Amino acid sequence: MEYSTSSLINSFQPKEKHTTLFNHQISARIRLATELDVPNLHKLVTQMAEYHGLSQIFTTTETSLYNNLFKSPNPPFHSPTALILEISPNPFPQTNHTTTTNFVPIIKNNYNFDNLEILDHELETYRSKFNGHGHDNSNNCNVYVAGHVLVYPSYNGFFEKPGLFLDQMFVRKCYRGMKFGKLLFSAVAMQAEKMGMGMVDWLVADWNEETINFYEKMGAHYIPEYRLCKLYGDQLQAFGKKSD
Amino acid sequence: MEYSTSSLINSFQPKEKHTTLFNHQISARIRLATELDVPNLHKLVTQMAEYHGLSQIFTTTETSLYNNLFKSPNPPFHSPTALILEISPNPFPQTNHTTTTNFVPIIKNNYNFDNLEILDHELETYRSKFNGHGHDNSNNCNVYVAGHVLVYPSYNGFFEKPGLFLDQMFVRKCYRGMKFGKLLFSAVAMQAEKMGMGMVDWLVADWNEETINFYEKMGAHYIPEYRLCKLYGDQLQAFGKKSD
Repeated sequence: MEYSTSSLINSFQPKEKHTTLFNHQISARIRLATELDVPNLHKLVTQMAEYHGLSQIFTTTETSLYNNLFKSPNPPFHSPTALILEISPNPFPQTNHTTTTNFVPIIKNNYNFDNLEILDHELETYRSKFNGHGHDNSNNCNVYVAGHVLVYPSYNGFFEKPGLFLDQMFVRKCYRGMKFGKLLFSAVAMQAEKMGMGMVDWLVADWNEETINFYEKMGAHYIPEYRLCKLYGDQLQAFGKKSD
Repeated sequence: MEYSTSSLINSFQPKEKHTTLFNHQISARIRLATELDVPNLHKLVTQMAEYHGLSQIFTTTETSLYNNLFKSPNPPFHSPTALILEISPNPFPQTNHTTTTNFVPIIKNNYNFDNLEILDHELETYRSKFNGHGHDNSNNCNVYVAGHVLVYPSYNGFFEKPGLFLDQMFVRKCYRGMKFGKLLFSAVAMQAEKMGMGMVDWLVADWNEETINFYEKMGAHYIPEYRLCKLYGDQLQAFGKKSD
Protein backbone atom coordinates (compact mmCIF):
# COMPACT_ATOMS: atom_id res chain seq x y z
CA MET A 1 0.00 0.00 0.00
CA GLU A 2 1.22 3.47 -0.84
CA TYR A 3 1.14 6.42 1.49
CA SER A 4 -1.15 8.13 -0.98
CA THR A 5 -1.70 11.82 -0.49
CA SER A 6 -4.30 12.35 -3.15
CA SER A 7 -6.71 14.95 -1.96
CA LEU A 8 -9.77 12.88 -2.78
CA ILE A 9 -12.07 13.22 0.15
CA ASN A 10 -14.47 10.40 0.77
CA SER A 11 -17.99 11.66 0.39
CA PHE A 12 -19.71 12.06 3.67
CA GLN A 13 -22.84 9.99 4.19
CA PRO A 14 -24.91 11.31 7.06
CA LYS A 15 -26.47 8.45 9.00
CA GLU A 16 -28.58 10.59 11.29
CA LYS A 17 -30.90 13.53 10.89
CA HIS A 18 -29.05 16.72 11.63
CA THR A 19 -29.62 18.35 14.97
CA THR A 20 -29.11 21.94 15.98
CA LEU A 21 -28.73 22.65 19.64
CA PHE A 22 -26.87 25.90 19.51
CA ASN A 23 -28.49 29.32 19.40
CA HIS A 24 -25.64 31.70 18.72
CA GLN A 25 -23.88 30.62 21.86
CA ILE A 26 -21.65 27.64 22.54
CA SER A 27 -19.38 26.53 25.37
CA ALA A 28 -16.16 24.62 24.85
CA ARG A 29 -13.84 22.56 27.00
CA ILE A 30 -10.48 20.93 26.31
CA ARG A 31 -9.53 18.12 28.66
CA LEU A 32 -7.38 15.01 28.83
CA ALA A 33 -8.95 12.05 27.04
CA THR A 34 -9.91 9.04 29.14
CA GLU A 35 -10.55 5.42 28.21
CA LEU A 36 -14.25 6.30 27.84
CA ASP A 37 -13.35 8.54 24.89
CA VAL A 38 -11.87 5.72 22.80
CA PRO A 39 -14.95 5.12 20.58
CA ASN A 40 -15.35 8.84 19.82
CA LEU A 41 -11.62 9.25 19.33
CA HIS A 42 -11.61 6.39 16.85
CA LYS A 43 -14.36 8.08 14.85
CA LEU A 44 -12.39 11.35 14.88
CA VAL A 45 -9.12 9.86 13.63
CA THR A 46 -11.04 7.89 11.00
CA GLN A 47 -12.69 11.10 9.73
CA MET A 48 -9.34 12.87 9.75
CA ALA A 49 -7.73 10.10 7.68
CA GLU A 50 -10.60 10.42 5.18
CA TYR A 51 -10.12 14.19 5.02
CA HIS A 52 -6.42 13.71 4.22
CA GLY A 53 -7.07 10.97 1.68
CA LEU A 54 -5.17 8.47 3.84
CA SER A 55 -7.85 5.83 4.41
CA GLN A 56 -5.78 3.32 2.44
CA ILE A 57 -2.95 3.35 4.99
CA PHE A 58 -5.23 3.71 8.01
CA THR A 59 -4.86 0.77 10.43
CA THR A 60 -5.96 2.28 13.74
CA THR A 61 -8.51 0.32 15.77
CA GLU A 62 -10.23 1.11 19.05
CA THR A 63 -7.96 -1.47 20.66
CA SER A 64 -4.80 0.09 19.26
CA LEU A 65 -5.90 3.55 20.41
CA TYR A 66 -6.52 2.18 23.88
CA ASN A 67 -3.15 0.41 23.93
CA ASN A 68 -1.17 3.36 22.62
CA LEU A 69 -2.85 6.07 24.70
CA PHE A 70 -3.85 4.47 27.97
CA LYS A 71 -1.56 1.57 28.78
CA SER A 72 1.69 3.47 29.33
CA PRO A 73 2.99 3.67 32.91
CA ASN A 74 4.13 7.24 32.11
CA PRO A 75 2.01 10.25 33.08
CA PRO A 76 0.20 12.27 30.36
CA PHE A 77 2.50 14.05 27.88
CA HIS A 78 5.34 11.64 28.72
CA SER A 79 3.85 9.13 26.29
CA PRO A 80 1.25 9.52 23.50
CA THR A 81 -1.58 11.62 24.88
CA ALA A 82 -4.94 12.80 23.52
CA LEU A 83 -6.83 15.95 24.37
CA ILE A 84 -10.55 16.11 23.63
CA LEU A 85 -12.48 19.19 22.55
CA GLU A 86 -16.03 19.14 23.86
CA ILE A 87 -18.83 21.56 23.13
CA SER A 88 -22.16 22.13 24.82
CA PRO A 89 -25.06 24.58 24.73
CA ASN A 90 -24.62 24.85 28.51
CA PRO A 91 -21.63 26.30 30.31
CA PHE A 92 -19.09 23.82 31.69
CA PRO A 93 -18.57 23.74 35.45
CA GLN A 94 -15.26 25.25 36.49
CA THR A 95 -12.73 22.56 37.30
CA ASN A 96 -11.56 21.99 40.82
CA HIS A 97 -7.83 22.37 40.15
CA THR A 98 -6.83 20.35 43.18
CA THR A 99 -8.23 17.19 41.60
CA THR A 100 -6.46 17.71 38.27
CA THR A 101 -3.07 16.07 38.19
CA ASN A 102 -1.38 17.27 35.05
CA PHE A 103 -3.54 19.16 32.61
CA VAL A 104 -5.98 21.78 33.84
CA PRO A 105 -9.01 21.72 31.51
CA ILE A 106 -9.42 24.83 29.39
CA ILE A 107 -12.97 26.16 29.43
CA LYS A 108 -14.53 28.84 27.21
CA ASN A 109 -18.10 29.33 28.33
CA ASN A 110 -20.88 31.07 26.40
CA TYR A 111 -18.86 31.84 23.32
CA ASN A 112 -20.94 33.97 20.91
CA PHE A 113 -21.01 33.11 17.25
CA ASP A 114 -23.35 35.40 15.41
CA ASN A 115 -24.12 34.58 11.79
CA LEU A 116 -23.19 30.94 12.11
CA GLU A 117 -25.58 28.05 11.91
CA ILE A 118 -24.32 24.71 13.17
CA LEU A 119 -25.85 21.64 11.56
CA ASP A 120 -24.26 18.65 13.22
CA HIS A 121 -25.39 15.51 11.37
CA GLU A 122 -23.61 13.34 13.91
CA LEU A 123 -24.49 15.09 17.14
CA GLU A 124 -25.84 12.02 18.93
CA THR A 125 -23.02 9.81 17.67
CA TYR A 126 -20.52 12.15 19.30
CA ARG A 127 -22.22 12.50 22.66
CA SER A 128 -19.47 12.67 25.28
CA LYS A 129 -19.07 9.76 27.67
CA PHE A 130 -17.17 11.81 30.21
CA ASN A 131 -18.62 13.44 33.30
CA GLY A 132 -15.47 14.41 35.13
CA HIS A 133 -15.37 11.39 37.39
CA GLY A 134 -14.62 8.66 34.90
CA HIS A 135 -18.12 7.20 34.95
CA ASP A 136 -20.35 6.70 31.97
CA ASN A 137 -22.51 9.75 31.59
CA SER A 138 -24.18 9.04 28.27
CA ASN A 139 -27.61 10.34 28.93
CA ASN A 140 -27.56 13.12 31.41
CA CYS A 141 -25.89 16.09 29.81
CA ASN A 142 -25.62 17.85 26.47
CA VAL A 143 -21.90 17.55 25.99
CA TYR A 144 -20.54 16.51 22.59
CA VAL A 145 -17.10 15.78 21.20
CA ALA A 146 -16.03 18.20 18.45
CA GLY A 147 -12.33 17.55 17.97
CA HIS A 148 -9.03 16.27 19.33
CA VAL A 149 -5.27 16.57 19.37
CA LEU A 150 -2.71 13.79 19.69
CA VAL A 151 0.74 14.62 21.03
CA TYR A 152 3.80 12.73 22.25
CA PRO A 153 7.12 13.75 23.79
CA SER A 154 9.78 14.58 21.22
CA TYR A 155 13.47 15.35 21.23
CA ASN A 156 15.86 17.17 18.96
CA GLY A 157 19.59 16.75 19.41
CA PHE A 158 20.23 20.40 18.52
CA PHE A 159 18.05 21.72 21.35
CA GLU A 160 18.76 21.77 25.06
CA LYS A 161 15.17 20.98 26.04
CA PRO A 162 12.82 18.25 24.83
CA GLY A 163 9.45 19.08 23.30
CA LEU A 164 6.06 17.88 22.23
CA PHE A 165 5.30 16.53 18.78
CA LEU A 166 1.81 17.48 17.64
CA ASP A 167 0.78 14.43 15.61
CA GLN A 168 -2.84 15.33 14.90
CA MET A 169 -5.17 18.24 15.41
CA PHE A 170 -8.73 17.92 14.15
CA VAL A 171 -11.96 19.86 14.51
CA ARG A 172 -15.11 18.35 13.05
CA LYS A 173 -16.25 20.21 9.93
CA CYS A 174 -19.38 21.82 11.35
CA TYR A 175 -17.38 23.38 14.18
CA ARG A 176 -14.68 25.00 12.05
CA GLY A 177 -14.27 28.75 11.76
CA MET A 178 -14.98 29.19 15.46
CA LYS A 179 -11.35 29.42 16.62
CA PHE A 180 -11.41 25.96 18.21
CA GLY A 181 -8.22 25.08 16.29
CA LYS A 182 -6.49 28.01 17.91
CA LEU A 183 -7.81 26.90 21.31
CA LEU A 184 -6.48 23.34 20.79
CA PHE A 185 -3.10 24.51 19.49
CA SER A 186 -2.74 26.95 22.37
CA ALA A 187 -3.54 24.17 24.83
CA VAL A 188 -0.61 22.14 23.47
CA ALA A 189 1.82 25.08 23.36
CA MET A 190 0.84 26.23 26.85
CA GLN A 191 1.32 22.70 28.19
CA ALA A 192 4.78 22.42 26.58
CA GLU A 193 5.76 25.76 28.07
CA LYS A 194 4.33 24.81 31.47
CA MET A 195 6.36 21.60 31.45
CA GLY A 196 9.57 23.53 30.71
CA MET A 197 9.88 22.12 27.23
CA GLY A 198 11.72 23.90 24.45
CA MET A 199 9.58 23.32 21.38
CA VAL A 200 6.44 22.05 19.71
CA ASP A 201 6.94 20.38 16.31
CA TRP A 202 4.43 19.21 13.74
CA LEU A 203 4.01 18.65 10.03
CA VAL A 204 1.76 20.47 7.63
CA ALA A 205 0.85 19.61 4.05
CA ASP A 206 2.31 22.13 1.60
CA TRP A 207 -1.04 22.48 -0.23
CA ASN A 208 -2.72 23.58 2.96
CA GLU A 209 -1.99 27.32 2.75
CA GLU A 210 -4.76 28.25 5.13
CA THR A 211 -3.27 26.01 7.80
CA ILE A 212 0.27 27.26 7.15
CA ASN A 213 -0.95 30.84 7.58
CA PHE A 214 -2.77 29.83 10.75
CA TYR A 215 0.39 28.37 12.24
CA GLU A 216 2.57 31.29 11.23
CA LYS A 217 0.15 33.60 13.00
CA MET A 218 0.62 31.42 16.08
CA GLY A 219 4.36 32.18 16.00
CA ALA A 220 5.54 28.99 14.28
CA HIS A 221 8.53 28.76 11.99
CA TYR A 222 7.57 27.10 8.72
CA ILE A 223 10.62 25.22 7.46
CA PRO A 224 9.80 24.23 3.89
CA GLU A 225 12.94 22.24 3.08
CA TYR A 226 12.40 19.50 5.62
CA ARG A 227 10.32 16.65 4.20
CA LEU A 228 8.92 13.60 5.83
CA CYS A 229 10.27 10.14 5.16
CA LYS A 230 8.49 7.07 6.40
CA LEU A 231 9.47 3.42 6.47
CA TYR A 232 6.58 1.06 7.21
CA GLY A 233 4.75 -2.05 6.11
CA ASP A 234 6.60 -4.65 4.06
CA GLN A 235 9.64 -2.41 3.70
CA LEU A 236 10.03 -2.15 7.48
CA GLN A 237 9.33 -5.83 8.04
CA ALA A 238 12.10 -6.67 5.59
CA PHE A 239 14.59 -5.33 8.13
CA GLY A 240 13.50 -7.99 10.59
CA LYS A 241 14.67 -10.63 8.12
CA LYS A 242 18.03 -9.05 7.31
CA SER A 243 21.16 -10.38 8.90
CA ASP A 244 23.39 -7.71 10.39
CA MET B 1 17.08 33.74 16.32
CA GLU B 2 15.87 32.19 13.11
CA TYR B 3 15.92 28.52 12.29
CA SER B 4 18.35 29.29 9.48
CA THR B 5 18.88 26.56 6.95
CA SER B 6 21.57 28.23 4.88
CA SER B 7 23.93 25.60 3.63
CA LEU B 8 27.02 27.50 4.71
CA ILE B 9 29.26 24.99 6.35
CA ASN B 10 31.60 26.33 8.96
CA SER B 11 35.14 25.77 7.83
CA PHE B 12 36.77 22.96 9.67
CA GLN B 13 39.85 23.85 11.68
CA PRO B 14 41.90 20.78 12.51
CA LYS B 15 43.36 21.04 15.98
CA GLU B 16 45.41 17.87 15.84
CA LYS B 17 47.75 16.27 13.39
CA HIS B 18 45.91 13.73 11.35
CA THR B 19 46.43 10.10 12.14
CA THR B 20 45.93 7.09 9.96
CA LEU B 21 45.49 3.79 11.69
CA PHE B 22 43.65 1.88 9.01
CA ASN B 23 45.29 -0.18 6.32
CA HIS B 24 42.50 -1.11 3.94
CA GLN B 25 40.63 -2.84 6.72
CA ILE B 26 38.38 -1.46 9.42
CA SER B 27 36.03 -2.95 12.00
CA ALA B 28 32.80 -1.30 13.09
CA ARG B 29 30.40 -1.66 15.99
CA ILE B 30 27.04 -0.06 16.76
CA ARG B 31 26.01 -0.14 20.39
CA LEU B 32 23.82 1.70 22.87
CA ALA B 33 25.42 4.91 24.12
CA THR B 34 26.28 5.13 27.80
CA GLU B 35 26.90 8.12 30.06
CA LEU B 36 30.61 7.83 29.24
CA ASP B 37 29.82 8.74 25.62
CA VAL B 38 28.35 12.14 26.49
CA PRO B 39 31.48 14.22 25.65
CA ASN B 40 31.94 12.48 22.28
CA LEU B 41 28.22 12.66 21.57
CA HIS B 42 28.24 16.38 22.25
CA LYS B 43 31.06 16.86 19.74
CA LEU B 44 29.12 14.81 17.16
CA VAL B 45 25.86 16.76 17.48
CA THR B 46 27.83 20.02 17.41
CA GLN B 47 29.54 18.99 14.15
CA MET B 48 26.21 17.89 12.70
CA ALA B 49 24.62 21.27 13.54
CA GLU B 50 27.56 23.00 11.79
CA TYR B 51 27.11 20.77 8.74
CA HIS B 52 23.43 21.72 8.53
CA GLY B 53 24.10 25.43 9.10
CA LEU B 54 22.14 25.32 12.36
CA SER B 55 24.79 26.49 14.82
CA GLN B 56 22.73 29.62 15.51
CA ILE B 57 19.85 27.66 17.02
CA PHE B 58 22.06 25.04 18.68
CA THR B 59 21.61 25.00 22.47
CA THR B 60 22.63 21.43 23.39
CA THR B 61 25.10 21.04 26.24
CA GLU B 62 26.76 17.98 27.71
CA THR B 63 24.42 18.34 30.68
CA SER B 64 21.31 18.51 28.51
CA LEU B 65 22.42 15.44 26.55
CA TYR B 66 22.94 13.58 29.80
CA ASN B 67 19.55 14.68 31.14
CA ASN B 68 17.64 13.89 27.96
CA LEU B 69 19.30 10.55 27.18
CA PHE B 70 20.21 8.96 30.50
CA LYS B 71 17.86 10.18 33.22
CA SER B 72 14.63 8.60 31.99
CA PRO B 73 13.25 5.69 34.02
CA ASN B 74 12.17 4.11 30.72
CA PRO B 75 14.30 1.46 29.01
CA PRO B 76 16.19 2.30 25.78
CA PHE B 77 13.97 3.15 22.78
CA HIS B 78 11.08 4.03 25.13
CA SER B 79 12.59 7.49 25.63
CA PRO B 80 15.26 9.41 23.64
CA THR B 81 18.09 6.97 22.93
CA ALA B 82 21.49 7.26 21.24
CA LEU B 83 23.40 4.59 19.35
CA ILE B 84 27.13 5.03 18.86
CA LEU B 85 29.12 3.93 15.81
CA GLU B 86 32.63 2.88 16.76
CA ILE B 87 35.47 1.92 14.46
CA SER B 88 38.76 0.19 15.16
CA PRO B 89 41.71 -1.30 13.26
CA ASN B 90 41.15 -4.42 15.40
CA PRO B 91 38.14 -6.71 15.29
CA PHE B 92 35.54 -6.20 18.02
CA PRO B 93 34.92 -9.08 20.43
CA GLN B 94 31.59 -10.78 19.80
CA THR B 95 29.00 -9.74 22.32
CA ASN B 96 27.71 -12.14 24.90
CA HIS B 97 24.02 -11.80 24.09
CA THR B 98 22.90 -12.96 27.51
CA THR B 99 24.30 -9.78 29.09
CA THR B 100 22.64 -7.44 26.59
CA THR B 101 19.21 -6.34 27.72
CA ASN B 102 17.65 -4.55 24.80
CA PHE B 103 19.92 -3.81 21.88
CA VAL B 104 22.36 -6.41 20.66
CA PRO B 105 25.46 -4.60 19.33
CA ILE B 106 25.95 -4.88 15.59
CA ILE B 107 29.50 -5.80 14.65
CA LYS B 108 31.15 -5.74 11.22
CA ASN B 109 34.70 -6.97 11.62
CA ASN B 110 37.53 -6.59 9.11
CA TYR B 111 35.59 -4.65 6.54
CA ASN B 112 37.75 -4.11 3.43
CA PHE B 113 37.88 -0.73 1.80
CA ASP B 114 40.27 -0.75 -1.11
CA ASN B 115 41.14 2.58 -2.68
CA LEU B 116 40.16 4.61 0.36
CA GLU B 117 42.53 6.54 2.54
CA ILE B 118 41.22 7.64 5.92
CA LEU B 119 42.77 10.78 7.36
CA ASP B 120 41.11 11.39 10.71
CA HIS B 121 42.23 14.76 12.01
CA GLU B 122 40.39 14.17 15.26
CA LEU B 123 41.21 10.54 15.93
CA GLU B 124 42.47 11.04 19.48
CA THR B 125 39.67 13.45 20.35
CA TYR B 126 37.17 10.75 19.49
CA ARG B 127 38.78 7.87 21.35
CA SER B 128 35.97 5.76 22.77
CA LYS B 129 35.46 5.72 26.54
CA PHE B 130 33.51 2.48 26.46
CA ASN B 131 34.91 -0.98 27.13
CA GLY B 132 31.74 -2.98 27.42
CA HIS B 133 31.54 -2.91 31.19
CA GLY B 134 30.81 0.74 31.80
CA HIS B 135 34.35 1.56 33.03
CA ASP B 136 36.62 4.18 31.59
CA ASN B 137 38.78 2.55 29.01
CA SER B 138 40.55 5.54 27.55
CA ASN B 139 44.00 4.17 27.10
CA ASN B 140 43.88 0.49 26.42
CA CYS B 141 42.30 -0.04 23.05
CA ASN B 142 42.13 1.51 19.61
CA VAL B 143 38.42 2.14 19.46
CA TYR B 144 37.14 5.45 18.13
CA VAL B 145 33.72 7.05 17.76
CA ALA B 146 32.75 7.70 14.13
CA GLY B 147 29.05 8.55 14.24
CA HIS B 148 25.73 8.31 16.01
CA VAL B 149 21.97 8.14 15.71
CA LEU B 150 19.36 9.66 18.02
CA VAL B 151 15.89 8.14 18.12
CA TYR B 152 12.79 8.40 20.28
CA PRO B 153 9.44 6.60 20.37
CA SER B 154 6.87 8.12 18.06
CA TYR B 155 3.18 7.67 17.38
CA ASN B 156 0.85 8.34 14.48
CA GLY B 157 -2.88 8.29 15.01
CA PHE B 158 -3.46 6.71 11.57
CA PHE B 159 -1.33 3.63 12.35
CA GLU B 160 -2.12 0.74 14.62
CA LYS B 161 1.42 0.42 15.93
CA PRO B 162 3.77 3.04 17.36
CA GLY B 163 7.19 3.69 15.85
CA LEU B 164 10.60 5.23 16.20
CA PHE B 165 11.41 8.75 15.12
CA LEU B 166 14.96 9.02 13.76
CA ASP B 167 15.99 12.48 14.89
CA GLN B 168 19.64 12.44 13.84
CA MET B 169 21.99 10.21 11.93
CA PHE B 170 25.56 11.33 11.49
CA VAL B 171 28.81 9.80 10.27
CA ARG B 172 31.99 11.86 10.62
CA LYS B 173 33.19 13.12 7.24
CA CYS B 174 36.32 10.96 6.94
CA TYR B 175 34.25 7.80 7.44
CA ARG B 176 31.63 8.48 4.79
CA GLY B 177 31.29 6.40 1.66
CA MET B 178 31.89 3.20 3.63
CA LYS B 179 28.25 2.22 4.11
CA PHE B 180 28.23 3.12 7.80
CA GLY B 181 25.10 5.22 7.22
CA LYS B 182 23.36 2.14 5.90
CA LEU B 183 24.57 0.17 8.91
CA LEU B 184 23.22 2.80 11.34
CA PHE B 185 19.90 3.14 9.53
CA SER B 186 19.48 -0.64 9.41
CA ALA B 187 20.19 -0.84 13.13
CA VAL B 188 17.28 1.52 13.80
CA ALA B 189 14.88 -0.18 11.37
CA MET B 190 15.79 -3.65 12.68
CA GLN B 191 15.24 -2.50 16.25
CA ALA B 192 11.82 -1.01 15.38
CA GLU B 193 10.85 -4.25 13.68
CA LYS B 194 12.19 -6.34 16.57
CA MET B 195 10.11 -4.30 19.03
CA GLY B 196 6.97 -4.90 16.97
CA MET B 197 6.70 -1.28 15.91
CA GLY B 198 4.94 -0.17 12.75
CA MET B 199 7.15 2.57 11.33
CA VAL B 200 10.32 4.63 11.36
CA ASP B 201 9.89 8.32 10.53
CA TRP B 202 12.46 11.04 9.92
CA LEU B 203 12.96 14.27 8.06
CA VAL B 204 15.28 14.97 5.18
CA ALA B 205 16.28 18.31 3.66
CA ASP B 206 14.90 18.67 0.13
CA TRP B 207 18.31 19.85 -1.21
CA ASN B 208 19.92 16.64 -0.04
CA GLU B 209 19.24 14.48 -3.11
CA GLU B 210 21.95 12.00 -2.30
CA THR B 211 20.37 11.33 1.08
CA ILE B 212 16.86 11.11 -0.38
CA ASN B 213 18.10 8.53 -2.88
CA PHE B 214 19.84 6.66 -0.09
CA TYR B 215 16.62 6.44 1.92
CA GLU B 216 14.50 5.44 -1.06
CA LYS B 217 16.92 2.58 -1.70
CA MET B 218 16.34 1.53 1.91
CA GLY B 219 12.60 1.18 1.17
CA ALA B 220 11.43 4.51 2.57
CA HIS B 221 8.51 6.48 1.26
CA TYR B 222 9.50 10.05 0.54
CA ILE B 223 6.48 12.25 1.14
CA PRO B 224 7.36 15.64 -0.31
CA GLU B 225 4.25 17.55 0.67
CA TYR B 226 4.68 17.30 4.42
CA ARG B 227 6.76 20.13 5.81
CA LEU B 228 8.10 20.74 9.25
CA CYS B 229 6.72 23.45 11.52
CA LYS B 230 8.42 24.37 14.73
CA LEU B 231 7.40 26.59 17.61
CA TYR B 232 10.25 27.45 19.98
CA GLY B 233 12.07 30.23 21.79
CA ASP B 234 10.24 33.48 22.49
CA GLN B 235 7.23 32.39 20.44
CA LEU B 236 6.75 29.28 22.59
CA GLN B 237 7.39 31.14 25.84
CA ALA B 238 4.69 33.61 24.88
CA PHE B 239 2.15 30.81 25.36
CA GLY B 240 3.17 30.55 28.99
CA LYS B 241 1.99 34.12 29.49
CA LYS B 242 -1.32 33.82 27.64
CA SER B 243 -4.53 33.42 29.53
CA ASP B 244 -6.78 30.68 28.20
